[in-house]
Amino acid sequence: MEAKVFRVPMRSPDDVQGVAELVESGRLRAGEVRCIMGKTEGNGCVNDFSRGFSNFVLSDYFARALNISRREAEARISLIMSGGTEGAMSPHFTVFAASPGGGPAAEESGGKRLAFASGHTREFLPEEIGRMPQAEATAEMVRRLMGEAGIGDPSDLHFVQVKCPLLTAERIRGAPQRGKGVRVEDTYKSMAYSRGASALGVALAAGEVRAAQLSDEAICRDWSLASGVASTSAGIELMCNEVTVFGNSPAWGGGLLIGHSVMRDALDRDAVKAALESAGLAFGWGLSPEQRERVVNVLAKCEASPDGLIRGRRHTMLDDSDINSTRHARAVVNAVVASVVGDPMVYVSGGAEHQGPPGGGPIAVIARAS
Amino acid sequence: MEAKVFRVPMRSPDDVQGVAELVESGRLRAGEVRCIMGKTEGNGCVNDFSRGFSNFVLSDYFARALNISRREAEARISLIMSGGTEGAMSPHFTVFAASPGGGPAAEESGGKRLAFASGHTREFLPEEIGRMPQAEATAEMVRRLMGEAGIGDPSDLHFVQVKCPLLTAERIRGAPQRGKGVRVEDTYKSMAYSRGASALGVALAAGEVRAAQLSDEAICRDWSLASGVASTSAGIELMCNEVTVFGNSPAWGGGLLIGHSVMRDALDRDAVKAALESAGLAFGWGLSPEQRERVVNVLAKCEASPDGLIRGRRHTMLDDSDINSTRHARAVVNAVVASVVGDPMVYVSGGAEHQGPPGGGPIAVIARAS
Amino acid sequence: MEAKVFRVPMRSPDDVQGVAELVESGRLRAGEVRCIMGKTEGNGCVNDFSRGFSNFVLSDYFARALNISRREAEARISLIMSGGTEGAMSPHFTVFAASPGGGPAAEESGGKRLAFASGHTREFLPEEIGRMPQAEATAEMVRRLMGEAGIGDPSDLHFVQVKCPLLTAERIRGAPQRGKGVRVEDTYKSMAYSRGASALGVALAAGEVRAAQLSDEAICRDWSLASGVASTSAGIELMCNEVTVFGNSPAWGGGLLIGHSVMRDALDRDAVKAALESAGLAFGWGLSPEQRERVVNVLAKCEASPDGLIRGRRHTMLDDSDINSTRHARAVVNAVVASVVGDPMVYVSGGAEHQGPPGGGPIAVIARAS
Amino acid sequence: MEAKVFRVPMRSPDDVQGVAELVESGRLRAGEVRCIMGKTEGNGCVNDFSRGFSNFVLSDYFARALNISRREAEARISLIMSGGTEGAMSPHFTVFAASPGGGPAAEESGGKRLAFASGHTREFLPEEIGRMPQAEATAEMVRRLMGEAGIGDPSDLHFVQVKCPLLTAERIRGAPQRGKGVRVEDTYKSMAYSRGASALGVALAAGEVRAAQLSDEAICRDWSLASGVASTSAGIELMCNEVTVFGNSPAWGGGLLIGHSVMRDALDRDAVKAALESAGLAFGWGLSPEQRERVVNVLAKCEASPDGLIRGRRHTMLDDSDINSTRHARAVVNAVVASVVGDPMVYVSGGAEHQGPPGGGPIAVIARAS
Repeated sequence: MEAKVFRVPMRSPDDVQGVAELVESGRLRAGEVRCIMGKTEGNGCVNDFSRGFSNFVLSDYFARALNISRREAEARISLIMSGGTEGAMSPHFTVFAASPGGGPAAEESGGKRLAFASGHTREFLPEEIGRMPQAEATAEMVRRLMGEAGIGDPSDLHFVQVKCPLLTAERIRGAPQRGKGVRVEDTYKSMAYSRGASALGVALAAGEVRAAQLSDEAICRDWSLASGVASTSAGIELMCNEVTVFGNSPAWGGGLLIGHSVMRDALDRDAVKAALESAGLAFGWGLSPEQRERVVNVLAKCEASPDGLIRGRRHTMLDDSDINSTRHARAVVNAVVASVVGDPMVYVSGGAEHQGPPGGGPIAVIARAS
Repeated sequence: MEAKVFRVPMRSPDDVQGVAELVESGRLRAGEVRCIMGKTEGNGCVNDFSRGFSNFVLSDYFARALNISRREAEARISLIMSGGTEGAMSPHFTVFAASPGGGPAAEESGGKRLAFASGHTREFLPEEIGRMPQAEATAEMVRRLMGEAGIGDPSDLHFVQVKCPLLTAERIRGAPQRGKGVRVEDTYKSMAYSRGASALGVALAAGEVRAAQLSDEAICRDWSLASGVASTSAGIELMCNEVTVFGNSPAWGGGLLIGHSVMRDALDRDAVKAALESAGLAFGWGLSPEQRERVVNVLAKCEASPDGLIRGRRHTMLDDSDINSTRHARAVVNAVVASVVGDPMVYVSGGAEHQGPPGGGPIAVIARAS
Repeated sequence: MEAKVFRVPMRSPDDVQGVAELVESGRLRAGEVRCIMGKTEGNGCVNDFSRGFSNFVLSDYFARALNISRREAEARISLIMSGGTEGAMSPHFTVFAASPGGGPAAEESGGKRLAFASGHTREFLPEEIGRMPQAEATAEMVRRLMGEAGIGDPSDLHFVQVKCPLLTAERIRGAPQRGKGVRVEDTYKSMAYSRGASALGVALAAGEVRAAQLSDEAICRDWSLASGVASTSAGIELMCNEVTVFGNSPAWGGGLLIGHSVMRDALDRDAVKAALESAGLAFGWGLSPEQRERVVNVLAKCEASPDGLIRGRRHTMLDDSDINSTRHARAVVNAVVASVVGDPMVYVSGGAEHQGPPGGGPIAVIARAS
Repeated sequence: MEAKVFRVPMRSPDDVQGVAELVESGRLRAGEVRCIMGKTEGNGCVNDFSRGFSNFVLSDYFARALNISRREAEARISLIMSGGTEGAMSPHFTVFAASPGGGPAAEESGGKRLAFASGHTREFLPEEIGRMPQAEATAEMVRRLMGEAGIGDPSDLHFVQVKCPLLTAERIRGAPQRGKGVRVEDTYKSMAYSRGASALGVALAAGEVRAAQLSDEAICRDWSLASGVASTSAGIELMCNEVTVFGNSPAWGGGLLIGHSVMRDALDRDAVKAALESAGLAFGWGLSPEQRERVVNVLAKCEASPDGLIRGRRHTMLDDSDINSTRHARAVVNAVVASVVGDPMVYVSGGAEHQGPPGGGPIAVIARAS
């Protein structure tokens, strides 16, 4: 297998022309697309319809291209739309295709290449969301997908994208009839618990935490537990966890590599450098023009530091009733990453419970091998 | 003379305790304070009352400390409040005092030290705002203040802060009676024209443009004309230009230096490095802990690039009807600067007409000499 | 002919289930739908993607229902999506169908019934937008559509919805090559000029202004000229004016009537009463339950009064840099209308140049005849 | 005693000129001012500095006028600043003075006149906030102030304004050391609990609920318990409840009356009418010009209905991540009230836990007796 990854600019949430041109030019086969991650230009919060709009138009496009129904297209391709392109962030899609063409990478070229696999857990009961059953099912799925993708060692696992469910009033009402209450009744907060449980599931599979450390109580409470490779986001449209693992595998060919690091706070420029170097791009002050060409995309998670401080200085993100803190945080982390790689069209997503340390988050780099 | 500069955190717009503690501890004499630049945590736009609140409380404090009226305190100390602490930016005051204590810097220590001087032009007629008379009076004032501060050479001039007037409906009504219309009838846009004319006045005095290049028509139209040291902001409370020049002078002593560079876009990390090096702080990837200690503050101007692109990528700042583009831009530039100096408590102000290239802006660094 | 009008709640911008149920239940024939006016829950400003999302999903639905292409569906049905459901306003679609079933209304029942017709002008050159050619072509189209709908007398014309073009950077660039500049270079302001010229075209056809009063200069300047029946909104997706006239006609049957009045300011409760009475609903303090049932929908235009005053009191809508003034205005007018009719699911749209007096706007009521 | 009440427009949060002119003209004695309620033009949420700015400038003014310290002025005059003037709401102060001049009202004029009294409870421990001790102390204070003001009967009590404390991280940390946790750890939510407990305290004193119905558990849970006269708002600057009761008393003279009603939802126009009639202003469709002159101010509380519906229609206030729901709700209720009284300069404040039914709130009218 060979991974093909394309970063495509978007002029508006319904602009799939860039994707269409890849297909029409023959560079991308519609039938090989497995996953699309998008940064769409809504507010990234509750009433962000840019995500759904991109989803609708993308699935409509692939339904026509593959002569299947929209629903079948959605089942076939994992569509992960992350809203919010604050500051310099440039709206775009990242298209992941798995092509049978490539054989294993030649030994002399490092021997491992970008590999990925997608799958979804069983559907959860509302009372399981934000609790151990969700974490455990996620861990199990990550392990299975690592096997499928041929990512043998946790040290070769660099990014795990999880789309997880949230609670709604209707879902909450069903739970007590089965004898157990839900984890949290506030629907907005249920997103955090679902993201947190999912991230700890990834941490478990990645060997970053031990099973004995986890419990219902630890989720969204014991912040010392975290994954350096999890990227989780909650959505209303599903009741299972949809998981995509990314890593390097000796079984895959092609010319791409992935690496990662963990930002310890929103200004952690050193982690950006470390992530680039982890993907084979070593440099002093800045990337060379040739190195810049080799960067396919950077994927990062972020949040406003919950203690209200960055490097000991007070920030105002959490007290701002006009602009949501996640919007501020995305602008900051995008700017830090973009200033190092010299390109603002990188993927930064908000809400990082148990994903890196409080106020920080994982950062992965996909790059062409030299 | 000796310049003393203190950067003081602010817990809210009315928190002057940090300033009071400097005075009470004897490190700062209230009577020597000449200028205070503040980053306050409002929206930085029209209905930002955090600026006025800080102004009121600061002048109230100094009136009591110096046993004068609030009005006298405002006349004595140039108070420049810039609203908007988006992203990681941390609210703070920068207090500039001129102390008679210091003699000229010893020849062996480089021979020049941070110097500054403040003054204000005559009051303008409404029809002069955004036109050549405002530019010319500003240029004249900059030259006079350079003389006062002992900044002999334009290459020693590193930052010129100008507070300039704007047009109101009332001011506009008076103009036609004198036979000449105002430059622009839109009061919000008059802020841009006033900032632009003032910046070109600074450029003229600094030798960055020639008099023959300037005209009423060139203001806010010919963007090839710009100053790399001007930082101008419009306010409703005055009809003159209030100017403070900052540079290095052989006539001043003390331990501070200023340097500067120009960001060519909002992500220009190289310019941050160049500005730090211009102030005596040379480094490879990052500042050493000792060097960080020597940074007193960084002062930068920014704006969303008017062509909608950064590094060839589309940004969404100009189409965002929920968040003003200046708010996005401040978050970006603060993050870029903060990630390099390791501190988000730096001064970044929006609205950069004729201040650096379109989408970019001047950046100055005040640092302790080694 | 008989007009059928259905008001359908929307749970999100892509929720067309209410429309589908009307069709499936046999109450509405998909092929008879001529126009859909929607209130979608975006910000109603530049980056409002809820409008486009509803448009896409509606045209997708009708394409499938009628077995035509999405493009053909859009050509067949005038889709007018107005963003912004501030305050209590409830998102909904109003579906207008023309059914051949109904004969002329019986003489004894008043003799006239709701009639409507849609059409579009030729495409405009960029330099014609916001100028007399646009106004004149609109007037001509209104007259033609009045004829088509059998609305013989201007006093029977109660509401004219116009979707008109705006200028973009690209469109502006083309104009000088043809020897004439565009009306305004600011793309956002071009929306106001286009709305204004279109509204004056309606006023001309409705006999509210005389041709001699109109000129390029009068558009968006002489606010004494206005239409009490025009409702115009600018969109990027067309270069012609798409016009729908609504009135009462002796040639149409069915059970619906339309009436209107003009709000003189955003709080003009008396005009709401007058509009209801104009549609046959006379009352004292409030509508009776039976009368409430007869209200099909209320359609109103609004804006923040440009002089900053309502009833002599200062409002803060125009100085608010966090919330656009049109958003405030919609919340106010919807609340005033909703409090009188007892229902917040009414249509209120912002931006009312030459539509009613400054700060006010037309208000129409569609009701079932008694 | 005689109550004097003045409604004064404000041009900005620091504009106290209207108050100063009342004093200078001799219509108001600075020493007789007991309470000022302000509507200031901030966002009414966490980072609203317009409230503090008005507070600072008002206390500064009265300190100078009465030749006392700012702190003494604040202790002497209850300053209640409510942020948020969305929609048509016009910023203003309402100044309440108690003048010894007036004797009891003549029997023939109705026998009762506007009376009020202010006081504050003991300081609460953090763990008491949002629980019964806060409710009980509030009830006790209301009863005592009713006695002081000569409001003998609960039916003569029409409005009780309470300023109550909130929890901060620091306050929360202290509680466990005393063996009992705080009611809620989320500082923003503590505002709701504090408002709710205070409102139930008012309800208890007003005889609207019985002591047996109240418990820690009922606060912010059993919404069937509510006061029709309570108006409570939380602020960071105090740890006690500051209470002002307003009613009609046979012991007071002067020419003012107060009445009230309860809005059952945000569009409840009938309740506005009932409140006006309760204050002696009976009318059919609208107030006469003479009646409008008699309205001194209207005071109302509001909130977005928590079930997401108004009159059975979905509203979008609770899902709007760009504009806080309280901002939407204020725009709506102000518009409804203003459209009936013909004046947008009325007081509408958000956050109505246990103040009227869910989605509704109390509304009081102060008017000149005929």
